[in-house]
Amino acid sequence: MRILLTGGAGFIGSHLADELLNQGNEVVIFDNLSLGRMSNIETALKNPNCKFIKGDILNKEELFSVFADNNFDVVFHMAANSDIAKSHANPDVDFGNTLTTTYNVLLGMKEYGVKSIVFASTSAIYGDAGVSVDEDFGPLFPISHYGASKLASEAFISSFCENYGIKAWITRFPNVVGERATHGAIYDFINKLKKNPNELEVLGDGTQIKPYLYVKDLVEAIITVWKNTNEQVNYFNIGVESRTTVKEMAEMVIEEMKLPATIRYTGGNKGWVGDVPQFSYSLDKIHNLGWSAKVSSNEAVRKSIQYILEQDLCKQL
Amino acid sequence: MRILLTGGAGFIGSHLADELLNQGNEVVIFDNLSLGRMSNIETALKNPNCKFIKGDILNKEELFSVFADNNFDVVFHMAANSDIAKSHANPDVDFGNTLTTTYNVLLGMKEYGVKSIVFASTSAIYGDAGVSVDEDFGPLFPISHYGASKLASEAFISSFCENYGIKAWITRFPNVVGERATHGAIYDFINKLKKNPNELEVLGDGTQIKPYLYVKDLVEAIITVWKNTNEQVNYFNIGVESRTTVKEMAEMVIEEMKLPATIRYTGGNKGWVGDVPQFSYSLDKIHNLGWSAKVSSNEAVRKSIQYILEQDLCKQL
Repeated sequence: MRILLTGGAGFIGSHLADELLNQGNEVVIFDNLSLGRMSNIETALKNPNCKFIKGDILNKEELFSVFADNNFDVVFHMAANSDIAKSHANPDVDFGNTLTTTYNVLLGMKEYGVKSIVFASTSAIYGDAGVSVDEDFGPLFPISHYGASKLASEAFISSFCENYGIKAWITRFPNVVGERATHGAIYDFINKLKKNPNELEVLGDGTQIKPYLYVKDLVEAIITVWKNTNEQVNYFNIGVESRTTVKEMAEMVIEEMKLPATIRYTGGNKGWVGDVPQFSYSLDKIHNLGWSAKVSSNEAVRKSIQYILEQDLCKQL
Repeated sequence: MRILLTGGAGFIGSHLADELLNQGNEVVIFDNLSLGRMSNIETALKNPNCKFIKGDILNKEELFSVFADNNFDVVFHMAANSDIAKSHANPDVDFGNTLTTTYNVLLGMKEYGVKSIVFASTSAIYGDAGVSVDEDFGPLFPISHYGASKLASEAFISSFCENYGIKAWITRFPNVVGERATHGAIYDFINKLKKNPNELEVLGDGTQIKPYLYVKDLVEAIITVWKNTNEQVNYFNIGVESRTTVKEMAEMVIEEMKLPATIRYTGGNKGWVGDVPQFSYSLDKIHNLGWSAKVSSNEAVRKSIQYILEQDLCKQL
């Protein structure tokens, strides 16, 4: 298969690149390197089936020229703003980088006759829906601009499928952690502890509980969905049954850093505006495909902490 | 109340203007007159509480200056592309005029501290969901770009509510007919019969069945929802229990035009790509508020036919 992988130098995208190449596909990575890093795709680029193009999806001319030069079978569209809290102050971040990017990719597919899209969606489309949310949950009232932009993206993917005979594989992720992650609560905790090794300030009351999915499990799940379903619009929650509280995460960071820090909670059940305090998915649909996560939420968090600390150590050497 | 009414010179917007003025509100109509007409607001503009500003919501500077010059209590956002079939060839029509307009209005509200929005949404967000669809239906996979743009608009309304303490009243309409309508199947049938009074070509097999809501009933319902609900995001289907088939509509047009035409169906269960062949809402939620439509679907369609034919007669005189 000849694949366009947007955001392929990013955290999730680069792991996906590795796996798609492993499986013998040709992969063109298109990334503006705003969140992505060349170091993430060092290994991938050693494969002759991998090509990197630096470019911005919001520049339609740049994007369309990539479509024109390649005869893609499928687009894996991973490019997006991935920092949910960021767009509270400036919603344009998500309207542009999360929604309009998707829309432009769809326009490119329409224009150049590409008939398959695999899309990175999110649990954030469900808003503050609570627990055991299945794929057919409604109403859909996202509380972050990121969630709104991903729901809006799904909506256009759906209308493009109907209008132009496209097929879609929509995979909805929870928090994802692991090697190459670029930001998030774990990063914030480590950075805070570097400044003050005696006290860790944690937003909220520590009871927020969410599933943290290991990035390599996620990649396996995305490919499983793509290979094993064949409706016009295929849509799946991807996740892990276990969950981790913010308190557990904070304690693991302190433990791994071997610090004597105490935790101070700012209080309230939300870390920030748009945060979803309690969340769990129903994963029956993806489990019925024969896939389930191998790494637990706590293990995934710990792997991520260890990776970041090792990276720091490497920098110091 | 000081109200910004976008799309206020349009079909539905102008009826809303009349009623909001009747109820003693101050109304600033903002409309680019692409689909709206000055003749629709002739009566409204005789009211000293009504002001018209010609401008384009996609021009943020123009829009923001209206926010800056007025201290609005609430925005009734009715501006949109209303021709669903049109954007099959060019999805930008809906991405711009239906979605980006909403997004810009929300940015204006954020910037100028307006805390209430009443929004014209649509049954098209439910896609080809079938019958008795209630407000909490999922999954939401619209099949037209219009439906996608309205769902995307709802998504951003929801995230703006959470992020900036805004309240929203989302009202979802089916097909709406009545005085001042500018296009749609009734128009198409009349125009076809003017060209060929002996035969009426009808897209599909005539069995498509939908509720057609009378515009004055709709306006009453929108105001009922706005005045009688007070959640952060209030959302209601608005409709009429009865429905009309395309066959009935075609027969009524022929009857009202007093023509000897026979009907020729092109076949298939969809009139055009993105058309939803069979649709009905659950209206329990709005009925529980004490509102129900006074005019049946067939009566509403007939009123609409008679209005268009009278307008034609007036033009000839």
